[in-house]
Amino acid sequence: MVKIGLLGCGTIGSGVVELLGRESCHRNGLSIEKILVRNLSKHNNRPYGCKLTNSFEDILKSDIDIVVEVMGGIDPAYFYVKQSLLKGRHVVTANKDLIAKFGNELQKIARQNGVRLLFEASVGGGIPIIKPLSESLAANSISEIRGIVNGTTNFILSRMGSSGMAYEAALKEAQQSGYAEANPESDVMGFDSARKLAILSSIAFRCSVDYEDIYIEGINNVSADDISLAKYLGYSIKLLALSRRSEKGIMARVAPVLLKNTDPLAGVADVYNSIIVKGDAVGDVLFFGQGAGKLPTASAVVGDIFDIVRHSLGNRNKECFDAEELLSEKVDMEGCSADFFIRIKPRSRVEAMNKIAGLFERFEFVFPDRAKLQKPVDPNQIVFIAYNIPEVDIDEKIKSLKAADAVDSVLSVLRIEGDD
Amino acid sequence: MVKIGLLGCGTIGSGVVELLGRESCHRNGLSIEKILVRNLSKHNNRPYGCKLTNSFEDILKSDIDIVVEVMGGIDPAYFYVKQSLLKGRHVVTANKDLIAKFGNELQKIARQNGVRLLFEASVGGGIPIIKPLSESLAANSISEIRGIVNGTTNFILSRMGSSGMAYEAALKEAQQSGYAEANPESDVMGFDSARKLAILSSIAFRCSVDYEDIYIEGINNVSADDISLAKYLGYSIKLLALSRRSEKGIMARVAPVLLKNTDPLAGVADVYNSIIVKGDAVGDVLFFGQGAGKLPTASAVVGDIFDIVRHSLGNRNKECFDAEELLSEKVDMEGCSADFFIRIKPRSRVEAMNKIAGLFERFEFVFPDRAKLQKPVDPNQIVFIAYNIPEVDIDEKIKSLKAADAVDSVLSVLRIEGDD
Repeated sequence: MVKIGLLGCGTIGSGVVELLGRESCHRNGLSIEKILVRNLSKHNNRPYGCKLTNSFEDILKSDIDIVVEVMGGIDPAYFYVKQSLLKGRHVVTANKDLIAKFGNELQKIARQNGVRLLFEASVGGGIPIIKPLSESLAANSISEIRGIVNGTTNFILSRMGSSGMAYEAALKEAQQSGYAEANPESDVMGFDSARKLAILSSIAFRCSVDYEDIYIEGINNVSADDISLAKYLGYSIKLLALSRRSEKGIMARVAPVLLKNTDPLAGVADVYNSIIVKGDAVGDVLFFGQGAGKLPTASAVVGDIFDIVRHSLGNRNKECFDAEELLSEKVDMEGCSADFFIRIKPRSRVEAMNKIAGLFERFEFVFPDRAKLQKPVDPNQIVFIAYNIPEVDIDEKIKSLKAADAVDSVLSVLRIEGDD
Repeated sequence: MVKIGLLGCGTIGSGVVELLGRESCHRNGLSIEKILVRNLSKHNNRPYGCKLTNSFEDILKSDIDIVVEVMGGIDPAYFYVKQSLLKGRHVVTANKDLIAKFGNELQKIARQNGVRLLFEASVGGGIPIIKPLSESLAANSISEIRGIVNGTTNFILSRMGSSGMAYEAALKEAQQSGYAEANPESDVMGFDSARKLAILSSIAFRCSVDYEDIYIEGINNVSADDISLAKYLGYSIKLLALSRRSEKGIMARVAPVLLKNTDPLAGVADVYNSIIVKGDAVGDVLFFGQGAGKLPTASAVVGDIFDIVRHSLGNRNKECFDAEELLSEKVDMEGCSADFFIRIKPRSRVEAMNKIAGLFERFEFVFPDRAKLQKPVDPNQIVFIAYNIPEVDIDEKIKSLKAADAVDSVLSVLRIEGDD
């Protein structure tokens, strides 16, 4: 049994409660023992009501293995996390303010007390980035971090770009959609991005990048004219968090920049986050996903909890790919359907088209405009798209096509996939 | 001191030797004790010559902590890895054939012997994917894996797409560039992708996806006509590795598909790899990078070695962000330069342009074609791009612009960034 004490039960906290309530977490022996909230009465009717407390002492007095801090802010989170580490509790936190400001000190306290402090959720929401950067890429000398790490500003800039609307209007829309807070300063002025950049850079460059040393510009002065002219020149405007390390030292800045449309970060739209890490052995590695939100962030928090369970609480039989743990499901294509792109060479054009119409329920012939083809195709062929064909039927249908008198040969059978 | 025994010293093996020779690895106490090669004389003049052996017994007899297998293939790698685990040695391998076929069995042996078997390098080269999938995303129920996991075929399809050339010509070019082997069967027939998909799916779905149950089609029948017509319809053709899990069971297939150009995987070009994981809490997470090559693959191997050192050999003071480990570098923008996009509102157009020419060494005025602007901009402004301005000078230059009689106001100062 792994006992967890949760500090805070707002948006992210309730996401953590939701994920830890899953069967897979019970199977791994994870159990929430106590939940610290400020106002007991606000939570009283919840299913976890019996676990609530408003006293931090209650948490420390219980024999809790892992303290999970999802309150945000420095005070009292800093005090609680520090006390937890000093009392020999592992800590998982989603708190970027705390880690950007006190990461070094707290990590040192953790080590001195033989416990771990993990904070995957502090940057990039659910995107795995802290652990890949600090563990998987540890063999590299990292020279650059570039990222879009704030969803609010990216949503605002995306809306300005797609609609031509002014900054103020896009901010208002973001607030109405719940993507920006009533007081959006920390996001739009670039402070949130700078804290995340400080955390990433400190890990990547193995030194202490102080958030207050980072050059910061917000997006509040970006105008519709900027966006329009940037687009004309082949750029998107993005709030870029950038740090580089060279012989000259470390540079780190957060600022709205014109980003070439061919840059992988230029296509990152709406509230998504993306981070590119440049390592001398691995080259550029890109991570992309939802950078905020209840369940994505809770996913990162619970991932850290699993890490501690696996590596620090001795629960070794949780490795992936281990036969003892496996479900017995097998691969089975039955029940799967796909859309198909099919080309045939007909003997008789009209009859072949009739044959196709008889074989496929939903389909569409393609009559390419020759002027618009990159490269001319053999005109003596029939191209069509057949929709929603069960995988178990396609072979039979193609065989029947091939056997038809009107058909000389089947040239191509390719599935169609896409983001939908 | 952490003692490493290396099995194989080909391309990836020599990459591992190179990375382990770095100062940071020495500082972490990593040391190669023995290197198993088939032909001693082929390696005799190398700096690591004194560590060579052609006897696997030599490896097992030494007090090695971690066996690193980078020979590839099943025989004798399977025997060596199994023996190493049985003798209580941690194992790191880059061998996808081995893991796809014997991953379950070997992981079970590892657990029974209290050691670990890691294989980050077996999928996606240097891209961190195995560990993020099995650890960071462990809180999720994963419903889908979609990826481009074979660089050779992606290079061939990219070349066919960009040039209109036929499959055979593109394959030949890939072989001449060293991206395809003399016998390209395992890549172009989809077998390599299927092995990687089996590994990813087994981890994601926590069941044993047998490589031989995967539906496989190669790219050898994809023609220039297919590519041309797909492009006309708004698609790219990609060799997609896809697996899904639903109530109906698991489907897994590797096949060339038409992928909508708006799909994030459609833009993955040349030898790059990219994988999208769909989790119920985290949503879509995308990983992108170099899927093969000496140093990218060695980066993943050495990342796994660090993992074992940190989590299984008790070397706890290697956590990121720990003050004891930090370098003393500080953020410093001195010496940095950037290109700037600048807009001003002039009082006198010609004099303002003269002022700009006096202040900036390399610059370009932008005269937008109004018909091509998404949204009209105020015509009473001067837009220019100034190149290579030291960060320490920009404030002074902008102040001087603002102070000029010919200038009413400075509307925008934005940096330009891009992939170059």
